[in-house]
Amino acid sequence: MIGHGFMGAAHSQGWRVAPRFFDLPLQPEMAVLVGRTGADASARKWGWAESATDWRAVIDRDDIDVVDIVTPGDTHREIAIAALAAGKHVLCEKPLANTVAEAEEMDAAATAAAERGIRSMVGFTYRRVPATTFARDLVASGRLGQVRQVRAEYLQDWLIDPEAPLTWRLKKDLAGSGALGDIGAHAIDLTEYITGQQVTSVSGIIETLVAERPLLGEGVGLSGTASSERGAVTVDDVALFTGRLSGGALASFEASRFRTGRKNALRIEISGSKGALAFDLERLNELEFYDATLPETQLGFQRILVTEHDHPYLAPWWPTGHMLGYEHGFSHQVGDFVTAIHAGAQPRPSFADGLHVQRVLDAVERSSAAGSTWIDTSA
Amino acid sequence: MIGHGFMGAAHSQGWRVAPRFFDLPLQPEMAVLVGRTGADASARKWGWAESATDWRAVIDRDDIDVVDIVTPGDTHREIAIAALAAGKHVLCEKPLANTVAEAEEMDAAATAAAERGIRSMVGFTYRRVPATTFARDLVASGRLGQVRQVRAEYLQDWLIDPEAPLTWRLKKDLAGSGALGDIGAHAIDLTEYITGQQVTSVSGIIETLVAERPLLGEGVGLSGTASSERGAVTVDDVALFTGRLSGGALASFEASRFRTGRKNALRIEISGSKGALAFDLERLNELEFYDATLPETQLGFQRILVTEHDHPYLAPWWPTGHMLGYEHGFSHQVGDFVTAIHAGAQPRPSFADGLHVQRVLDAVERSSAAGSTWIDTSA
Amino acid sequence: MIGHGFMGAAHSQGWRVAPRFFDLPLQPEMAVLVGRTGADASARKWGWAESATDWRAVIDRDDIDVVDIVTPGDTHREIAIAALAAGKHVLCEKPLANTVAEAEEMDAAATAAAERGIRSMVGFTYRRVPATTFARDLVASGRLGQVRQVRAEYLQDWLIDPEAPLTWRLKKDLAGSGALGDIGAHAIDLTEYITGQQVTSVSGIIETLVAERPLLGEGVGLSGTASSERGAVTVDDVALFTGRLSGGALASFEASRFRTGRKNALRIEISGSKGALAFDLERLNELEFYDATLPETQLGFQRILVTEHDHPYLAPWWPTGHMLGYEHGFSHQVGDFVTAIHAGAQPRPSFADGLHVQRVLDAVERSSAAGSTWIDTSA
Amino acid sequence: MIGHGFMGAAHSQGWRVAPRFFDLPLQPEMAVLVGRTGADASARKWGWAESATDWRAVIDRDDIDVVDIVTPGDTHREIAIAALAAGKHVLCEKPLANTVAEAEEMDAAATAAAERGIRSMVGFTYRRVPATTFARDLVASGRLGQVRQVRAEYLQDWLIDPEAPLTWRLKKDLAGSGALGDIGAHAIDLTEYITGQQVTSVSGIIETLVAERPLLGEGVGLSGTASSERGAVTVDDVALFTGRLSGGALASFEASRFRTGRKNALRIEISGSKGALAFDLERLNELEFYDATLPETQLGFQRILVTEHDHPYLAPWWPTGHMLGYEHGFSHQVGDFVTAIHAGAQPRPSFADGLHVQRVLDAVERSSAAGSTWIDTSA
Repeated sequence: MIGHGFMGAAHSQGWRVAPRFFDLPLQPEMAVLVGRTGADASARKWGWAESATDWRAVIDRDDIDVVDIVTPGDTHREIAIAALAAGKHVLCEKPLANTVAEAEEMDAAATAAAERGIRSMVGFTYRRVPATTFARDLVASGRLGQVRQVRAEYLQDWLIDPEAPLTWRLKKDLAGSGALGDIGAHAIDLTEYITGQQVTSVSGIIETLVAERPLLGEGVGLSGTASSERGAVTVDDVALFTGRLSGGALASFEASRFRTGRKNALRIEISGSKGALAFDLERLNELEFYDATLPETQLGFQRILVTEHDHPYLAPWWPTGHMLGYEHGFSHQVGDFVTAIHAGAQPRPSFADGLHVQRVLDAVERSSAAGSTWIDTSA
Repeated sequence: MIGHGFMGAAHSQGWRVAPRFFDLPLQPEMAVLVGRTGADASARKWGWAESATDWRAVIDRDDIDVVDIVTPGDTHREIAIAALAAGKHVLCEKPLANTVAEAEEMDAAATAAAERGIRSMVGFTYRRVPATTFARDLVASGRLGQVRQVRAEYLQDWLIDPEAPLTWRLKKDLAGSGALGDIGAHAIDLTEYITGQQVTSVSGIIETLVAERPLLGEGVGLSGTASSERGAVTVDDVALFTGRLSGGALASFEASRFRTGRKNALRIEISGSKGALAFDLERLNELEFYDATLPETQLGFQRILVTEHDHPYLAPWWPTGHMLGYEHGFSHQVGDFVTAIHAGAQPRPSFADGLHVQRVLDAVERSSAAGSTWIDTSA
Repeated sequence: MIGHGFMGAAHSQGWRVAPRFFDLPLQPEMAVLVGRTGADASARKWGWAESATDWRAVIDRDDIDVVDIVTPGDTHREIAIAALAAGKHVLCEKPLANTVAEAEEMDAAATAAAERGIRSMVGFTYRRVPATTFARDLVASGRLGQVRQVRAEYLQDWLIDPEAPLTWRLKKDLAGSGALGDIGAHAIDLTEYITGQQVTSVSGIIETLVAERPLLGEGVGLSGTASSERGAVTVDDVALFTGRLSGGALASFEASRFRTGRKNALRIEISGSKGALAFDLERLNELEFYDATLPETQLGFQRILVTEHDHPYLAPWWPTGHMLGYEHGFSHQVGDFVTAIHAGAQPRPSFADGLHVQRVLDAVERSSAAGSTWIDTSA
Repeated sequence: MIGHGFMGAAHSQGWRVAPRFFDLPLQPEMAVLVGRTGADASARKWGWAESATDWRAVIDRDDIDVVDIVTPGDTHREIAIAALAAGKHVLCEKPLANTVAEAEEMDAAATAAAERGIRSMVGFTYRRVPATTFARDLVASGRLGQVRQVRAEYLQDWLIDPEAPLTWRLKKDLAGSGALGDIGAHAIDLTEYITGQQVTSVSGIIETLVAERPLLGEGVGLSGTASSERGAVTVDDVALFTGRLSGGALASFEASRFRTGRKNALRIEISGSKGALAFDLERLNELEFYDATLPETQLGFQRILVTEHDHPYLAPWWPTGHMLGYEHGFSHQVGDFVTAIHAGAQPRPSFADGLHVQRVLDAVERSSAAGSTWIDTSA
């Protein structure tokens, strides 16, 4: 595994826990954790056998079969392409890359590697929350009829204080994107995953609601103290966009860091001719389902607790009514990835899926720059 | 109508509005409002043609067909029996009476009057919230299978401040009962109505949680100022009891004025072998229904908005999704009462139903006094 | 009152009930109901003293002080201008008119009439739900700090069946507009009312999701039987748009008749630098409030039951925790209108407010026609 | 660790994960898993270094410091006492024992061992859900004022089908108790933990709602096929009881396996003179808090997402708004236990706490047998 920030902890938990609950066809070993500084302590903490500072050297090792990339987005392209070239299966955290051009290179490399039996996958773990996987199953089985509308939003509020400092996440050269790429990407991927349709064109706006913030003084990161000087916020605080889906539905999206009181509200509602679904990541064990074919007096959204033995991913976990949490998706991701490697199958979301999300993000930025006119995502 | 407190306003609204929405077989006229003091102003305010101070004189008038009693409970017996004797149809606000003995007399009078075609009914209006009526229909149609358990509670919190003054409602000689009779009666009636079963025995406790409160000084009622002296609270603040139902189910009841944050939470949940129902008066347009016969992955409580044309009482009101409020039950009550009078049918809840609730309340008090031993409600 | 459809029933209930609960400075009399056909029966049913077929004749009567217009939108201009010219105070149901041009004429007439002491008001009653009025108060008092984002949506689902027939509401020549004008207008007005800001520009799309529907055969209205022939739906099924508000906030709007399972979900969420609010008309007695100034561990949306004596409009109604319904807004509207007339004050929403909503609707249509480019609402 | 059923998986996850997130003063090693049959496979699956079949031999090993007991309740006494005698720290899954007499022996052994620095703890993990720990903090800090009432319930529904087979859990000689001991114990412990008060006396009833069920034919456990013969259910399906708390509050309890639609609803609501709290295990990341000291118009239950850095146990986990699940409590349990061992402090809940719960359970059974009369829990 390359990288050891917050995502490193989550991925480590996935590698550690998945084999204890799922019967995997291959037993992963947590071999080497790579980081420029401090990887040694993280490796001990998280249970990796070794640590290293040079990812190139690790990629060349014969005893390494899988490379898990959890570094910042601007490094994904180089590492992933090198790892694939070295014949390693690659799990790459989202976003696939910071630009469409990078993502295209990576997709090409993945396609070429696949011909040699090398697998690659992007880390959109919210596909692997049992409730979202079950949502996809319900749509696929026709329970919603024809999907007409989608509302997908990812709402947070950690920037509502205008005195919150100007961290690296608010600078475009470092972060690449703001709310749009960070959390909007999840809303797009989840929409495409659950509906089985692609966003083909978009019209939207991205906006920076607080244009200047205090520069960080002493200290680093979020814990640094604010200085009295101010600097420009160069990423978006909020993205609002509409998309047409390949199956004919209209989708409305929002990604925001200014929706006061919403902490991690990745929410999606899908409206079809025979039914509807609603999901909220803040209540991730629940799925609301509406069956429009019931008699009029018995219509209503139903709160399904997605904790039954027969729900996706649930069988090896706990009895009915015992909740899963955020990090379980990472165990499911490891399980699916390892299973696909063993089966010689293409795991999803593929780099092509990740590239498509990148194209949608890029189209939103271009639409915003062009007065919200419609932009084709295949362009 | 005799009496003009809070219930007078609600009943007046029922008489005023019902004929404007329902096609009633008889057109009620709001003839006389009776009250010892101030009835004149209330009559003008609420739209009664006349006011009077002597209910006996009004009862003797030939142009009066119906007597609606909304006075305090200790006067119900005398007025109702006189009205029935005078050949008037009687609608009596709950509780039917303050004691079982009074209620028995009234029931006897009602039975005798019925033979002469005179109708009588008790004002448990929460039976006429569309959601509770629909709940009864679902149970009756077998959608819940065999009812196993009931949880019924009526929760308020207006006494949590120990410095709240000692009003008449907290004195047994004036109020008759505390939480038990005032709101527990509704929980009992609603349980019997929806399940179609009777409470046959009870074990419980009633308790006064704050034994002394400031006496009222200057002023009257709730707006009076508290004096520095204290007096004893002589009614119950909370009642907790368990009941056996005639169909074999176990029911658990609570009535409380100390459930902090609950304003008017008459809630009932009914658990059956094939399904369940949950209702909360604080969301009176909704009914939660659980169909246990669905496939395991699709189980879940369903929030039915009880506002469809085909739901009980809904047809003459507004389009789907337009909410009803508290007082609509009083229009439904008027509609049902007038319809029953015209049809020569016995309206429900009858005085016999009201008597039975009184017996349950009495049994709870006796059980509490006897160390929570079980008391038969037919005794 | 001129007109006697669904809105006629609601307005009648307002005129009937308001004086029974509120101490109005003037006592309204329900004088004449005007309708081309059937007004006689409606007048009897709803309690109007007379009925008439010619609104012009009624407007000329000296004993008429107020004209309440509840006819279809295409007739508003002519009636309202005539009534104002005749010196009658005018309450006009929303939308003010079917076009901006008509609304401008009406606004000019209202302004001229106001100089003669004649009052006029538009019937956006959702401003008078206690929870929305209280929401406005909270924003105005600064509890939300600076408003950054608004999400306003009005969701219904009565068109999800593609075989639902082609009624007059789906034909532009008769209905003027689809979801946008019918329900989107409420979302716009509520946003402007609660935030105290105006929508200054918009970008959006309106779309017809089911382009053809069965023609109505025998019978009329919604109850008509479908024929085997099909005709074109010429109004929008859904409108998605973004607006800039005069105070700097971004607002995202949706009006839809295809949001499966949502019956009457007028929902608004307002995100500010110090707090947030969320309201849903399907739970109209509740307001969710988030106070961002609380300590971190105590943050959370709070479900306020807007039924306290000190909440707007609540004092004359029922005790705490007793719910109001849809039609109470019409009583509040009558109360406010009558009070303003007596006080010689301009009631809100004025015709100017109604005109502004019309301009926003028009700008959305033009933006949609122009590829979702931004349109100034003052243009 | 001795035992390897469902609780074995959960405890293993706790031992595995706790050191990866919390900075523990001692590093636990997962040494030996003991089981009569199949421990070998479980040990491999869950990551224990060795397996064994004879717990006595393991307890005697010098390299073992801690014994974690997750066997059925009837074996707890013998193993725990032996382990304590051998100088091992003991974590014993709830219930502490199947009878008060056994629990008393264990408490005596734990008290004696404590004098030698040997620690013991009972596994009521629901105390270690961040929301319940935070609830305790709020009560302890006085935010609720004087606690007046508690409602605690643990509701499941896996027995509603009368044809569900007669498994060992429904036989008193094997299971010891039914709903009362299995889940009611949690409701009691959580009440005592959050309020800081003890249940001093109880009145209640336990009941078997379905008296006979099909015997298991071929196969074992829940997956066995039902035979055509029937046998008697000898444990309770439901327990309903009222308790007096040492601080003067009244508590109402329910434990049921017949509350249709409720899967794992351990719910508690605490009503105080200044505030209230409500928790539901089915939404374990949330705590509802009501502050009764706010102005009247701003009162309401607040949904606190207990996922902030400063909430109990949260700091080493994920960012705000990322959910924890059922098994996190087991990591917290391991962390607290190891920390207490290192600090030489008595961990809670102690065996004395476990004994007290056992006394309450016993008193409920005796009250039920004695016609629901009140029984002192200290007797």
